[in-house]
Amino acid sequence: VVTTDTLVAGVHFDDKTPVDMLGYKSVAVSLSDLAAMGATPAWLTLAITLPEAEKAWLTLFSAGLDTCCKEFDLALVGGNISHGPLTISTQVIGKVREGQYITRAGAQVGDDIYVTGKIGEAGLGLLLQQATIPWPQALAHDKPYLLSRLHKPTPRISVGLALLPFATACIDVSDGLAADLMHTITASGVGARISFDRMPLYTSYTQVMELAGGWQHAITAGEDYELCFTCAADQRTQVMEISRQTAVTITRIGSIEAAPGLRCEFNDKEMSLDRYGYRHFE
Amino acid sequence: VVTTDTLVAGVHFDDKTPVDMLGYKSVAVSLSDLAAMGATPAWLTLAITLPEAEKAWLTLFSAGLDTCCKEFDLALVGGNISHGPLTISTQVIGKVREGQYITRAGAQVGDDIYVTGKIGEAGLGLLLQQATIPWPQALAHDKPYLLSRLHKPTPRISVGLALLPFATACIDVSDGLAADLMHTITASGVGARISFDRMPLYTSYTQVMELAGGWQHAITAGEDYELCFTCAADQRTQVMEISRQTAVTITRIGSIEAAPGLRCEFNDKEMSLDRYGYRHFE
Repeated sequence: VVTTDTLVAGVHFDDKTPVDMLGYKSVAVSLSDLAAMGATPAWLTLAITLPEAEKAWLTLFSAGLDTCCKEFDLALVGGNISHGPLTISTQVIGKVREGQYITRAGAQVGDDIYVTGKIGEAGLGLLLQQATIPWPQALAHDKPYLLSRLHKPTPRISVGLALLPFATACIDVSDGLAADLMHTITASGVGARISFDRMPLYTSYTQVMELAGGWQHAITAGEDYELCFTCAADQRTQVMEISRQTAVTITRIGSIEAAPGLRCEFNDKEMSLDRYGYRHFE
Repeated sequence: VVTTDTLVAGVHFDDKTPVDMLGYKSVAVSLSDLAAMGATPAWLTLAITLPEAEKAWLTLFSAGLDTCCKEFDLALVGGNISHGPLTISTQVIGKVREGQYITRAGAQVGDDIYVTGKIGEAGLGLLLQQATIPWPQALAHDKPYLLSRLHKPTPRISVGLALLPFATACIDVSDGLAADLMHTITASGVGARISFDRMPLYTSYTQVMELAGGWQHAITAGEDYELCFTCAADQRTQVMEISRQTAVTITRIGSIEAAPGLRCEFNDKEMSLDRYGYRHFE
């Protein structure tokens, strides 16, 4: 299996993004796609466009990239370097056994919907980095953690591999949970109902919710690089066992329904979403 | 085998580049790398960054990309679309039999050096597109041909496949023949002597040579996407047979020597090159 992703300066990152983290993240976002397919990472190619060849920058970037490659046993086998606006495209090739992989298209009516980790923390990290909201002084100690959730996503490779026999559909959360779940249900020809009350969130989410633009920020902000997957409802024990084995929190957030579209409950009321996630072209 | 290439607006192309040709070329430049390895094209991913999602532009671009894919039996299997400065990265995956591929690193002392097609015509096409030189009125009828050499490179897939049992090293000419031959001899740990007098050039090259900045323009301008390869000197009959079978002109331009470095003869005199080809970062 193969996947490609691009990080663009001024769109996906800015001058405040630590350069080593940028190197790490450029690989991690592509690995996250492999995780969603239940694939084992194998090879990486890098196509980078740079305004200038600055040694200090390249050293930091390479170090971060190398760290992520080593962590996931990924070999950088080639690439391309061009002069131009800073743009980083990674292409990752992974291995699956014939016929053994997960797609977005297999969700069935009655399936449970799960997410790994916590949702919306990278989005809060972005608000912190942009310094556009007055962050509560009482939560100042959480800043480094939330920034690390933005800068250093954790591709859930081990979870994806463990899910291979169980998940009916899987996607990684990059645009926003709502948007990515929409991709899944559209591809599967089904609908979904999720409960925001069940959503695994930043522990002090309620204290920053309004600052962040309202309750739905967590499920529309994107860049979580967590997995959102579906499993038959009789597989709950197996899913919790996978959570235990991989030491990754997995939370059941809803279920697949026949009626098309995404319904989201908050405080036990069905809410309408005014957006689903990040859109590159409005 | 896998390869990736990037075309950046303002660096590799500009507003004068026909958009359908840009789509074609973005695939062709990566296929050219496969040709140099003696590989069979299989799959393509596209990572494109666009300032805006303009339907007319996308329709033309897609049509050109699709044409090249169909021509070379290549399947577009995925990709990524981002908002940002216009940048096009293609990643092509090709197939080779185990151990049967050509690299840059196998050139042996005494080998012949060959090129396919004509060298320097894309470079002249670029000068025409930029309209920076007063093109002779008498050669006006060659403009469309030279522009097509710039806009629509021909990946030499069939030649690469035919060369598999014979070539000791191969590279595609993207940065400039001199630069790419330098890559080959450096990787092979040898040197080379080529004769500019043997070089297959635009038929009226002598009439535009000075306008283009001197005799060496053809071998330093780049973007030919022809193959430059080496073969043992006792394989000349086989190479000419490959030329006949593939209907691609193949010209012997020099030979591999033990002494490191590239030597180029012009009018039977050894000349020094003040540059080898395009450099992204000076």
